Amino acid sequence: MPCNGTPSTRRYDWDALDETARAALLARPAQVVAQRTREAVAALLADVQARGDEALRDITARFDGVDLAGFEVGADEFAAAHAAVPAALREAMEQAAARIEAFHRAGMVQPYALETAPGVVCERVIRPISRVGLYVPAGSAPLPSTALMLGVPARLAGCREVVLCTPPRRDGSADPAVLVAAQLTGATRVFKLGGAQAIAAMAYGTGSVPKCDKLFGPGNGYVTEAKQQVAQGGVAAIDMPAGPSEVLVIADAGADAEFVAADLLSQAEHGPDSQVLLLSDDDALIGRVQAEIDAQLAKLSRADIARRALSASRLVRVPSLREAFAISNRYAPEHLILALRDPRAWLDSVEAAGSVFLGDYTPEALGDYCSGTNHVLPTSGAARAYSGVSVASFQNFVSVQSASRAGIAAIGGCALTLARAEGLDAHANAVSLRMGREAA
Amino acid sequence: MPCNGTPSTRRYDWDALDETARAALLARPAQVVAQRTREAVAALLADVQARGDEALRDITARFDGVDLAGFEVGADEFAAAHAAVPAALREAMEQAAARIEAFHRAGMVQPYALETAPGVVCERVIRPISRVGLYVPAGSAPLPSTALMLGVPARLAGCREVVLCTPPRRDGSADPAVLVAAQLTGATRVFKLGGAQAIAAMAYGTGSVPKCDKLFGPGNGYVTEAKQQVAQGGVAAIDMPAGPSEVLVIADAGADAEFVAADLLSQAEHGPDSQVLLLSDDDALIGRVQAEIDAQLAKLSRADIARRALSASRLVRVPSLREAFAISNRYAPEHLILALRDPRAWLDSVEAAGSVFLGDYTPEALGDYCSGTNHVLPTSGAARAYSGVSVASFQNFVSVQSASRAGIAAIGGCALTLARAEGLDAHANAVSLRMGREAA
Repeated sequence: MPCNGTPSTRRYDWDALDETARAALLARPAQVVAQRTREAVAALLADVQARGDEALRDITARFDGVDLAGFEVGADEFAAAHAAVPAALREAMEQAAARIEAFHRAGMVQPYALETAPGVVCERVIRPISRVGLYVPAGSAPLPSTALMLGVPARLAGCREVVLCTPPRRDGSADPAVLVAAQLTGATRVFKLGGAQAIAAMAYGTGSVPKCDKLFGPGNGYVTEAKQQVAQGGVAAIDMPAGPSEVLVIADAGADAEFVAADLLSQAEHGPDSQVLLLSDDDALIGRVQAEIDAQLAKLSRADIARRALSASRLVRVPSLREAFAISNRYAPEHLILALRDPRAWLDSVEAAGSVFLGDYTPEALGDYCSGTNHVLPTSGAARAYSGVSVASFQNFVSVQSASRAGIAAIGGCALTLARAEGLDAHANAVSLRMGREAA
Repeated sequence: MPCNGTPSTRRYDWDALDETARAALLARPAQVVAQRTREAVAALLADVQARGDEALRDITARFDGVDLAGFEVGADEFAAAHAAVPAALREAMEQAAARIEAFHRAGMVQPYALETAPGVVCERVIRPISRVGLYVPAGSAPLPSTALMLGVPARLAGCREVVLCTPPRRDGSADPAVLVAAQLTGATRVFKLGGAQAIAAMAYGTGSVPKCDKLFGPGNGYVTEAKQQVAQGGVAAIDMPAGPSEVLVIADAGADAEFVAADLLSQAEHGPDSQVLLLSDDDALIGRVQAEIDAQLAKLSRADIARRALSASRLVRVPSLREAFAISNRYAPEHLILALRDPRAWLDSVEAAGSVFLGDYTPEALGDYCSGTNHVLPTSGAARAYSGVSVASFQNFVSVQSASRAGIAAIGGCALTLARAEGLDAHANAVSLRMGREAA
């Protein structure tokens, strides 16, 4: 039950808001990167590019407080990690990896070939991205689950080199669970590097860290800014832009307030900037959820973090579930929980979201860990035009075409007409030369 | 035959180069965007964001030299365009569109569902990106083919709103062939806007131009910079980073020098910064190609442009075809032509390329126009980690999970163990509450 005092969440009535207030309600906190941050990251990137491992050593000493002679995790440290990780945790990671693998494997895009005209065969062939770099944060907590979410699809794609960076601890070691997760997925090389310096190392390559073609994974503001800068500069591709994590729950009158509150709190505990929204057509449910949040909050180890996130949370009464979906599509949440009596019937109404959780017994935590779906998902409305990580994120799709003499006879005329319309003579010439030869 | 005088191309021997020279040979011209360009584009974006259509009118008057009361192409102008386009060109566009549609449709990613544990179903559902913006340049030549390459997959994806911008001509009209191509693909709204201002209009939305979630298409340096800036700022997603177009040809002793020369020239005529490379293990072939280039060059309407591109071209003798593929994979060309006796046998050796052309009778021009593959492809080495435009470029892939009570009983323990290992109590609570309820 709620304590006497102000509730940690705020309630709104959608119908009572004008368009400005509605826009404000759905606005994410501005992701304005301070000029100082941008410049600090740019300087760090330039330093790593110029001085390589020496720069990494200096930066790691400064930010992680540890002097490392080398960054790569060796056989001894892996063995120690395996010894340190409890059997139950190891087994949970293995089970999670197996389900992640099953789901991701079943969704792999297939090559195909098609004769588009007599003598003209067009194909899609698939190649793994050769060298990928995975970043596994360990800020407020190490995240072995993220190592699984990135490492499993990288292995399925067949990437030749899978580099994984995770921050060193004060004693110079890496988190054992992250190391075990990395080995479970078959990451080829693991380095104890954190923050923007890890991104710099994988983007530019250094004496010890291989240069990677594409970088993946969540991280703090510096990591995100570093990823953006290397992507912008064409140094390495990145998986997606990243912002604070977020959940939107659509609940009807029959939803279980205890469950809904627990789901909102599990988003809130991620960080003080986590985004938490509840939309419901039932006032009483909203009231019960609000009370439940305060009741559950008191017992959480990360209550302080959650309370800060909840101060910006929004519990919104909406006139109808239909309106709730319109609002959700406008917001495009990373996680969308449908705490509805017939959630599947509403699935078609979802236009944009990272990952959707159907019904009362599918908490977001299942998707975070072990249902099989990926938890690296688009945030901050990016779900309007980006998708979560999949095997395809680690692959290149290469088109191939092959025309026989009959093929160019069949479609050469079409190409000629278009080339001439665009004023591209040499294009036309490359076609007509072959057509002429064919007749010869 | 070559004129007496300096050939327009340059020859190299890979084996005679040291690593520095090899790196220089494969380096693209630095895509350094001048600070002035960056600032000009940023100012233009801010102006369009602030003043909307009024800013568009001012900028269009300044850069396109035409005062437009409105930007949207109406029924009358479409009718005039249809009347102006010759039947043969219209038919060629229809044929090309049909093959592009057939190839792209066959490659569409499918939804799927999988039970990953008893009572746990994970799915991928597919949603069109709601509002997409296509940019069709008309700088040195209008490109109706680009309207087809972007519009056809957008229609297959089912995008609700397909906005297309193309620059106005001096008389205030748009290129008729581009308009016909736009209508062929079912673009919903067409605007006469060019350059960075078109990107700004589609990214921010104005009174007349709808705000789009993702922007597609090639363009000049200003267009590219504008796309990068709106993507970086999280305003709109973009298809891929863009640079000058490029081709790499791998030719053996049996290749036809006339064809190879024609293909190199059709790349060179795109623009003075086009990249042209030939790798061959046969010196005689290289000599014949060099002579042929000069012979054909003289007859081209865009010979000046081609000559400037060729001045930076590289005809490279390599010790073996195997080495040629190693070099090609390192370079990761946008277009890769295999002028080989058994090209298919070599296809497995291709690790990174945008689009591949097999054998003597498959000039790049076929893929540019009408084989069925897409011609919007990654340049500047981006093919290491980006793919060409496909239907998937216009879609979001949303993961969905649904657990029954049995489902959470089956995998809840796994999630609990991982949540506790990561110190995320509320995550654990969201799971254990449901598991407890199930037992009640």
